[in-house]
Amino acid sequence: MVGDPVNRSPIITLTTDFGLADPYVAAMKGVILSLNPAATIVDVTHQVRPQQVALAAFLLAQALPYFPLGTIHVVVVDPGVGTARQALALATPEMLLVGPDNGVLSAALPEEARRRAGEGPEASETDARRVELPEGYRAVALGRQRYMRQPVSATFHGRDIFAPAAAHLSLGVELEALGPAVRKVRALPPFRARRRPDGVLAGRVLHVDRFGNLITDIRAEDLPTGRVEVYVGGRRIEGLARTYEEEPEIKALVGSADCLEVACRGGSAAYRLGVDVGAAVLVKERDA
Amino acid sequence: MVGDPVNRSPIITLTTDFGLADPYVAAMKGVILSLNPAATIVDVTHQVRPQQVALAAFLLAQALPYFPLGTIHVVVVDPGVGTARQALALATPEMLLVGPDNGVLSAALPEEARRRAGEGPEASETDARRVELPEGYRAVALGRQRYMRQPVSATFHGRDIFAPAAAHLSLGVELEALGPAVRKVRALPPFRARRRPDGVLAGRVLHVDRFGNLITDIRAEDLPTGRVEVYVGGRRIEGLARTYEEEPEIKALVGSADCLEVACRGGSAAYRLGVDVGAAVLVKERDA
Amino acid sequence: MVGDPVNRSPIITLTTDFGLADPYVAAMKGVILSLNPAATIVDVTHQVRPQQVALAAFLLAQALPYFPLGTIHVVVVDPGVGTARQALALATPEMLLVGPDNGVLSAALPEEARRRAGEGPEASETDARRVELPEGYRAVALGRQRYMRQPVSATFHGRDIFAPAAAHLSLGVELEALGPAVRKVRALPPFRARRRPDGVLAGRVLHVDRFGNLITDIRAEDLPTGRVEVYVGGRRIEGLARTYEEEPEIKALVGSADCLEVACRGGSAAYRLGVDVGAAVLVKERDA
Repeated sequence: MVGDPVNRSPIITLTTDFGLADPYVAAMKGVILSLNPAATIVDVTHQVRPQQVALAAFLLAQALPYFPLGTIHVVVVDPGVGTARQALALATPEMLLVGPDNGVLSAALPEEARRRAGEGPEASETDARRVELPEGYRAVALGRQRYMRQPVSATFHGRDIFAPAAAHLSLGVELEALGPAVRKVRALPPFRARRRPDGVLAGRVLHVDRFGNLITDIRAEDLPTGRVEVYVGGRRIEGLARTYEEEPEIKALVGSADCLEVACRGGSAAYRLGVDVGAAVLVKERDA
Repeated sequence: MVGDPVNRSPIITLTTDFGLADPYVAAMKGVILSLNPAATIVDVTHQVRPQQVALAAFLLAQALPYFPLGTIHVVVVDPGVGTARQALALATPEMLLVGPDNGVLSAALPEEARRRAGEGPEASETDARRVELPEGYRAVALGRQRYMRQPVSATFHGRDIFAPAAAHLSLGVELEALGPAVRKVRALPPFRARRRPDGVLAGRVLHVDRFGNLITDIRAEDLPTGRVEVYVGGRRIEGLARTYEEEPEIKALVGSADCLEVACRGGSAAYRLGVDVGAAVLVKERDA
Repeated sequence: MVGDPVNRSPIITLTTDFGLADPYVAAMKGVILSLNPAATIVDVTHQVRPQQVALAAFLLAQALPYFPLGTIHVVVVDPGVGTARQALALATPEMLLVGPDNGVLSAALPEEARRRAGEGPEASETDARRVELPEGYRAVALGRQRYMRQPVSATFHGRDIFAPAAAHLSLGVELEALGPAVRKVRALPPFRARRRPDGVLAGRVLHVDRFGNLITDIRAEDLPTGRVEVYVGGRRIEGLARTYEEEPEIKALVGSADCLEVACRGGSAAYRLGVDVGAAVLVKERDA
């Protein structure tokens, strides 16, 4: 059960696009600590590019696996704040999440459920669509005034709805107490390169990290078992390296997120190759 | 009483212009935890523009209301460090604050007291002037060597005077033990737009947040009850929106600080309107 | 003994070049809290310029003295991650450190030991060389799989080796349990200006802080006792100031790290003088 670790030493993480210069994150922390002074609050990141819901889901997905069972993750990347979009709390077999129903909670959904969001001709990688919750997952629409800060601002649900919901969950309030159950939530398609009919893996750059490494949606498990060629930014890279330091200078390797990365020793691959988020990355088997 | 919540689970917040790249904030945290390992330290912001005392007071004022009773707020935006300016600890009915006597603690003073700092022909919005402390507020000048880190650097009172003072307060040391009582502290005038003789509210942009929203000194409670027109950066905006997402693209709305904001859907109003901190913002009643 | 404060209220600090936009720091925190939910984690800085090992050692050295006995410091500035470079845990009489064996742990070595790293004609200030550990210092090469996260990524030892090692140490695991003892570790020469045969102190700018202050390697204790002249960026500065606020506008003073700083009142000395990290700084005694 989730309850036990939550009650003893509740961890609440925060992922937002608020940055650290403004007092918004501190206001959320104050609200959480006012309700539960024993909460341990951990910042995942507050530097999601403003309103980039898919990026937030991608970054959060890389942090989720490393937190203890029962951790409560709050995600506030919420361009639709104050509109008709629902506010959700979601329980998975491992954790709890709180955030807007715009796809950002996809990070915690199993790939099978997310795949359904990508089906059909009009699907797009940044278009969140309603999918049925899988077995073992429960969600509620946050709707009970008594679990919100009053008055509720129309522009800052992070402070007035999501932070209080997380704090109440950390105190042992049942998910179902926070609002009516919902069976469907918005999900983004999985970040996963397609295999073309000719066998080539066709992916893209999802993120450029602080080092200028290009993090792609090409999963280690999808890579051919033989020797590969990687094409990105007009360059061909032969084979996979194991570390950032070794030859060649511009190299492809499987990074810590188990995805293909393109990196440059002692420098920025993004700068050296002149590519940014969204750039195409192709992987071919050498003798294919 | 303030004592109780402080003693059980003391929260100390930090607001500085130190940034996060340098080791200054960490040194302060080390000093606090060396004295009180049970303290919970929360960053409000460390990205105040260097030496912008009024901005620090404004940002802190937006975070203060959300922290529990008895929270201790340390503010170190202190261009006069090491000079004759006093170092203060201040107790209000809700909280404790520690910082230089340069106006930065204004954030916790009632508006009535701050108003006195703005009276007279030579007053200015960034000029802190001595005001009498209101009933229920107490302040001391930090002067006891035994509550400072030794030796005291002339350039880093945050580490050697303010952090230790906050830690000692969190351990239950009485405010009055830290130094001699003072009856007057420096305060900044309230951030509040003037109403001109013609009825127009004449305000200005106090802050541009990470989204490019223009946060003004025009309070929700000062807005006309009828339909309004907002003038900023050469543009006229009709009426108030409720959320960032709705029409029109460039809109005025009451933000989470209960002040008028100007925002742009999916973008930066500061960039789109070409305005920055200090820009004039006018509000007229439509049929006035 | 180190054991006592560690066991009661373990503090783990983090110093990396990961930045705060990516989820890398959060993954490390999740790993630590999964093993030891009672750990107090403090960020020293995550904004070391990528792969600048000497800068990391310098910044960390400024924070170390302010943390309680027994604090565990994790440093991950690690361009050689996944290569043959060793991973270390180091115990000093005051603290524990975990990080790569590339010189970054120099921050905690006594100056005498570091001096040996700078001897010989081929020595350089950014070249870490193996030195014997002094009396009272112990180190081990992290090698026990059971104290690592599995599987160990070749590109993120911070998450899979260093964070788990720190968490285990915070739980009271003995240093020696983590791997075989080593007698030599890589160290950087001390950051300390040379005295030239003509008596002039010849130093350099080690760091430019957020205010644009130039932090040099000229120690307060090495300064002449008489009146000094400081030469930097083509300018001569007479005498030492005590505070940032006083005359002259561009001034030299002893900063909070007990090193000579060059500062500009209300502005950036780096910008005003057009100098950056590495610039030469000379100090002469006035009548020498």
